[in-house]
Amino acid sequence: MPDDSGNTFSMVTCNAPVNIAVIKYWGKRDEECILPINSSLSVTLHQDQLKTTTTVACSRSFQEDRIWLNGKEEDINQPRLQSCLREIRRLARKRRSDGEGGVDLAGLSHKVHICSVNNFPTAAGLASSAAGYACLGERPSNEVGVYPVALSGPFSLCSLPLLSPFSFFPVYTLARVMGVEGELSAVARQGSGSACRSMYGGFVQWIMGQREDGKDSVAQQVEPETHWPELRILVLVVSAERKPVGSTSGMQTSVETSSLLKHRSDSVVPARMKEMIDAVHRKDFAAFAELTMKDSNQFHAICLDTYPPIFYLNDVSRHIINLVHHYNQHYREARVAYTFDAGPNAVIYTLQQHVDEFLQVVKHFFPPETNGGQFVKGLPVASTTLTEELRQAIGMEPMVKGISYIISTKAGPGPCIVEEPSQHLLGSDGLPKESA
Amino acid sequence: MPDDSGNTFSMVTCNAPVNIAVIKYWGKRDEECILPINSSLSVTLHQDQLKTTTTVACSRSFQEDRIWLNGKEEDINQPRLQSCLREIRRLARKRRSDGEGGVDLAGLSHKVHICSVNNFPTAAGLASSAAGYACLGERPSNEVGVYPVALSGPFSLCSLPLLSPFSFFPVYTLARVMGVEGELSAVARQGSGSACRSMYGGFVQWIMGQREDGKDSVAQQVEPETHWPELRILVLVVSAERKPVGSTSGMQTSVETSSLLKHRSDSVVPARMKEMIDAVHRKDFAAFAELTMKDSNQFHAICLDTYPPIFYLNDVSRHIINLVHHYNQHYREARVAYTFDAGPNAVIYTLQQHVDEFLQVVKHFFPPETNGGQFVKGLPVASTTLTEELRQAIGMEPMVKGISYIISTKAGPGPCIVEEPSQHLLGSDGLPKESA
Repeated sequence: MPDDSGNTFSMVTCNAPVNIAVIKYWGKRDEECILPINSSLSVTLHQDQLKTTTTVACSRSFQEDRIWLNGKEEDINQPRLQSCLREIRRLARKRRSDGEGGVDLAGLSHKVHICSVNNFPTAAGLASSAAGYACLGERPSNEVGVYPVALSGPFSLCSLPLLSPFSFFPVYTLARVMGVEGELSAVARQGSGSACRSMYGGFVQWIMGQREDGKDSVAQQVEPETHWPELRILVLVVSAERKPVGSTSGMQTSVETSSLLKHRSDSVVPARMKEMIDAVHRKDFAAFAELTMKDSNQFHAICLDTYPPIFYLNDVSRHIINLVHHYNQHYREARVAYTFDAGPNAVIYTLQQHVDEFLQVVKHFFPPETNGGQFVKGLPVASTTLTEELRQAIGMEPMVKGISYIISTKAGPGPCIVEEPSQHLLGSDGLPKESA
Repeated sequence: MPDDSGNTFSMVTCNAPVNIAVIKYWGKRDEECILPINSSLSVTLHQDQLKTTTTVACSRSFQEDRIWLNGKEEDINQPRLQSCLREIRRLARKRRSDGEGGVDLAGLSHKVHICSVNNFPTAAGLASSAAGYACLGERPSNEVGVYPVALSGPFSLCSLPLLSPFSFFPVYTLARVMGVEGELSAVARQGSGSACRSMYGGFVQWIMGQREDGKDSVAQQVEPETHWPELRILVLVVSAERKPVGSTSGMQTSVETSSLLKHRSDSVVPARMKEMIDAVHRKDFAAFAELTMKDSNQFHAICLDTYPPIFYLNDVSRHIINLVHHYNQHYREARVAYTFDAGPNAVIYTLQQHVDEFLQVVKHFFPPETNGGQFVKGLPVASTTLTEELRQAIGMEPMVKGISYIISTKAGPGPCIVEEPSQHLLGSDGLPKESA
C-alpha cells in the first residue's frame, strides 16, 4: 500500500505467545550463536491471556530503523535485535537470488519500523514497581524459557513486573514483511535462545544440536496444544521489590563458576528430556509434574551453586513450593506442579479438575485482603469450599503481601498473522497509533 | 569417692567445643556406622563463647542410666546415645581384658548419670521461640558440621534457637569415666557424624575413609588453633519462626533423590578438601573465604535439588550473603566469608583487622533498634564509622527483624577435663545440682 507520501509501503502484524519451560535452558556453549548446553522443553501459553502483538512496516521513506515497545521508543541498536534484522535481511536476499521472490522485496533495502504491545493485565497498584523495572535498559535477555515472545516481537513485561526478564525479537513479523518463510527458529534463537520455543503452539522442545554453526539447534513441536486439553496453567505473580540478576549474565556466570552445571547438562537433562517427552505423549500428569518440579529446583540449585550465588526464589516462592508439596502429599499424588524461572513468580501446572480447589487453597493461604487485591484473571474459576481436613493437612500460616494476582490460562497455539488491517499498531505515517 | 550411701562413685566433668564446617558433610554412605560420602573440614570454635559442659557419674547405687540436658531430664533410650554407651562400655571391657586397666573399672557394669549444660547466651525475647524449638524431641541429628558438641556431652540449642540441629553424645566424658583413652572419633561418629570433628581444636578434617567397618573414617587435626590467631568468627543469629527440616532425614532424602549430590561428593569435594587444607596451611584468607562460601552455597544447592526440596536459607540469609559479596566487591578482595548450616543463621569468617568495620556494616544494614535488641556478645569489638562511600557501594536497603544477636569468637582448643570438683554438674547424690 502507499504511505502518506505515496511511497510503497508494506506492513504486517502478528501475535505471538509466551512459553514456560518445564525442562530448563540455562547455559550457552556458544555466546555468539546462542547455542545451549542442553535441550529444553516448554509449554506455549494461550494468547487469550498472554500475547504480544507486533506490527512491522517497511518503507523507502523511513530514514532509519526504529522500535517502540508498549508505547515507548527504544534503542534499535541493541546487538541482538541488530543480529535478527541482519539475519532476516540476509535470508530475504538469499531468497531473492534463489529466484523464489518475496512478498515485499522492496523492504529489503528499506528501513523498518517496529511497534509492539502486550495484552498483559496491569494490576492496580503495580504501576510504580512496574515503572521501576527498567527491563528495557538492559541487554536483551536470553533466559531460561520464560516469556520469550520472540517471534511476534518486542514486548515489555513492565506491566507484569518481575514475571521474568524477556526478549523482544520480532522475528516472525519481520520475516513475514520481508517475505521470508520456513524454518525461523534458528533466526529467533539469534535474538533470544528460549524465544525459539515460541515458534510453535503446544509442547515444544528446543533441541540443543551438535553442529558448531547451530544449524541443528532448532525448536520442534512435541505435541500440539489440542493434545492435552485438560492441562491448565496458573501464573502466580509474586509481589517483589527488586529486580533480580539478568538471566543473560546469570547463565554466563553459572557456566563459568558452577561445578555442578556441566553434570546437569551432560548427565541429567538428556534423560529428563526423554522422560518429559514421554510423559507429554502419555499425558501422564504425575510424571510431568514431578519432572517439572525437580527441574525447576535443579535450575535454582545451579543458580545457588554459581559464584557469587544467584537467587531468584524468595520466601514467597518457597511458601508456594511448600504449599504445593503439602497439597500433593495430602492426596498422595502430584496434582499440582510449580516451576520458577529467573524471578520469584510461580507458574503452576495442574489439571482442569483440580484448578478450582487449588485456587481456593492459594486464596486461603494468601488471603486476597492482605495480598494487595489479589484476584484471578483469565479463564474462569469457580469458588469451592475447602475442607477443614485439607486446610489442616497443609498446616501452614497464611502469608500477607505474597501474591499480587493470578493469571489462569492453558496451552495455546503458536504465532499467527493478524489479517485485519485495523489491528495494525502503526498508522499510515509509519508511527504508532494513539492506542499503541 | 564415696557417694551418699558410701558406694564407690566416680565422676568426670569435661568441656567440649562446637565446630563449624567450611567444607560440608552432607550424605552418608552407611546409615548404621555413620560413614559419610565425602570428607569435610571445620574450625573448632573457642569455648569461652560456645561450649558444653558435661558431667558423667558412675555408681553401683544408680538404678538406671539417666540424662539431663540443660536442666531437663531426657530420654536415655535414644538409639544413637545407646550406641555410644554400648561402644564405650565395649572399649572399656576390651581394655580391661587386655590388662591395661582403667581408672574406674567398677563403672563398667554400673549405670551412668549424665548431665550437660551449655554456656550459650540466651537472648532476651527469645525464650518463647526457644522453648518452641523442640530440639530434643527429635531423633538425634547427624548433620552438616554444625554445633556437634558431641564429645563432652548432651547440650541443647534451646537457648540459641535455630542455630542448628545438634548432637548430644557425651563420648569424651563417658570415655574418661570408663577409663577409655585413645582414638575416640570413631566412637563419637557413632553418635553424630560431624561430632567427631569436635575432638580436636583448631582446623579439623573428618577423613571419609574407605573401609566398610568405618575404622578409617576419623577426625584429624589439620592445624591447631594457635596456627592462625588473626582468624575471627561471628555467629549472626537470624530471627526465624520455624524449625527447619532435621538434617538427619534431610541428608538421607538428598542421597536418595538429588541427581547432583553424587557428583559433588565424588568429583567436587576431593579437590576442595585439598585446596582448603592448603589454604589453611598457608593462612591464605582469600582462598579460604572463597572456598568456604562456594561450599556453603553448594550444600544449599544440593538441598534445593533434593525432592521435595529442603530450604535452610531464608530472605535474611540471602540478605547477609549479598551484603558479604557487596562488601568484598568494594574492596576487590574476599575479606569476609559466610557459611550456613542446616538453618538460616550465618557464620562469618574474617580476619581480626576487618571485624570492627564489618560489624559496623552489619549494624548499619540490620539496625539494632529494628532488629530485636541486636547486640554483640563475646570477644570485644570497637565502634567505627562507616564511610559514605562504603555504604553506597553496598547499596542495600536496611532490613528490619533480621538478626537477633551476634556472637563474636575465634578458633579454640578441643575438649578438656575440668579438674575442679566444684564444677561438677552432678552432686554427691548423683542428681543435677540446683545450678545445672
